[in-house]
Amino acid sequence: MAALTGSAGAAGLLPSLSVPGVTELKPLSRYEAMRLGPGWSHSCHAMLYAPNPGMLFGRIPLRYAVLMQMRFDGLLGFPGGFVDRRYWSLEDGLNRVLGLGLGCVRLTEADYLCSHLTEGPHRVVAHFYARQLTLEELHTIEICAVHSRDHGLEVMGMVRVPLYTQKDRMGGLPNFLGNSFIGTAKFQLLFALKVLNMVPEEKLAEAVAATQKQKKPAAEPAAVTANVTTANVTTTTAAVTAAVTANQIVAKPANELANQPLAVSMAEPAAEPTAEPAAEAMAE
Amino acid sequence: MAALTGSAGAAGLLPSLSVPGVTELKPLSRYEAMRLGPGWSHSCHAMLYAPNPGMLFGRIPLRYAVLMQMRFDGLLGFPGGFVDRRYWSLEDGLNRVLGLGLGCVRLTEADYLCSHLTEGPHRVVAHFYARQLTLEELHTIEICAVHSRDHGLEVMGMVRVPLYTQKDRMGGLPNFLGNSFIGTAKFQLLFALKVLNMVPEEKLAEAVAATQKQKKPAAEPAAVTANVTTANVTTTTAAVTAAVTANQIVAKPANELANQPLAVSMAEPAAEPTAEPAAEAMAE
Repeated sequence: MAALTGSAGAAGLLPSLSVPGVTELKPLSRYEAMRLGPGWSHSCHAMLYAPNPGMLFGRIPLRYAVLMQMRFDGLLGFPGGFVDRRYWSLEDGLNRVLGLGLGCVRLTEADYLCSHLTEGPHRVVAHFYARQLTLEELHTIEICAVHSRDHGLEVMGMVRVPLYTQKDRMGGLPNFLGNSFIGTAKFQLLFALKVLNMVPEEKLAEAVAATQKQKKPAAEPAAVTANVTTANVTTTTAAVTAAVTANQIVAKPANELANQPLAVSMAEPAAEPTAEPAAEAMAE
Repeated sequence: MAALTGSAGAAGLLPSLSVPGVTELKPLSRYEAMRLGPGWSHSCHAMLYAPNPGMLFGRIPLRYAVLMQMRFDGLLGFPGGFVDRRYWSLEDGLNRVLGLGLGCVRLTEADYLCSHLTEGPHRVVAHFYARQLTLEELHTIEICAVHSRDHGLEVMGMVRVPLYTQKDRMGGLPNFLGNSFIGTAKFQLLFALKVLNMVPEEKLAEAVAATQKQKKPAAEPAAVTANVTTANVTTTTAAVTAAVTANQIVAKPANELANQPLAVSMAEPAAEPTAEPAAEAMAE
């Protein structure tokens, strides 16, 4: 982190994100950002993360726990907010906001990661911080958050970001990136995962690409998809009607229920269909 | 709830969702669902909710706290999972799964709300439960969840669903519905909000419609949108370059920062631009 802070001090040395499909934001050195005029608003957000030795389903390495939050506006974002530089340093302002929602963490200039100009009609420069914690410290922050005065108001809940990709190529980070994010949060997440070497760059690109392939049918189903779906529903409905009528049905349990409701199935009989077959991490 | 359970016992009496843009799922009575053959998988999920007298920013009625969770696969869903009916009743199976993630809630048949056939290649019938709690009970469940053994594994965090719509017509429920959901969860959320009279039907339709308008540019920006964005970025970049060079810039702080990073601003000076102006609920 210290090395990054140092290089960020000189203009133009910050790496770009370079993930196809994600709009590149203009990086600024902290020095440049601090010299912006009073017409500029400064936002400060922080990524709190911890190495996580845990394994999902006993076999998918979690690698890191990374905290984001569901905000009052229904979007995912990092803890933080605007800082009025007339009254506060960036870090004091950030800590003030974090104090409302997280209660028990203080960041310093050593946690500074990068600054970027945001898109949109307003003059906002987004400063981003990252602090590595132990998993116990991170868990304590989650507990603080659910007890904090912001809980259920500005913050609807903290969530950890899945960094793995499951075998179906969507489960985990790709699906997560398909959620809705505030302002620069998605860019900052990807940027931090890249520059802190938490996820290999090609995995980030694959995850973003998978999201974008998925998005189109979700927004407006292609004719083919819609037809197939309708056909399935019709068949299923007919089958149910038959089953209800005759109370007998010949059907094999599915072997794999990818994309079905949450299966918590470690202790279930082997014959029970579960989401597990889709839950293995892709080989990296 | 009792009345609903009663009517759900007779086939065809369950109301349809009837929200344009959301695929209608076929409702089944509990009686019908219980007579499906062994080739069918049964999933049980629960919506836990509580009347919430709180006001966001002191003026937006929260009305209810409704619990969902960020799952291991990066999708939002309700607590629950598959139930193996060879060994468990629906409710016992559901409580078994809830016990892993929430620790401290038990549902009964009186909490049963509806059953629907799911889409997709597998024969799955999704049972849905809803239980009204006090806000204190619901908060206790959130605290249980963050301490539970599933936390950070199958469940990445609990979130409350914003039921209001902010003045910008996206903040709150519309944005939330723009996130990614597992299987039938989005349908079940909308269905429960409708039949339990938690959100007026026309507000649900408006929220879904707003999401769909938004989704298209998000998935693949229209030419016009892309151009405007690019123009903004170019202007901003030029302005910053000028500012950094000359260290002076003429720019007015934005009055309204809708769609910008989280502003926690109740205690900030009035001149500080915040997200608040966009945070008023739409008149209903």
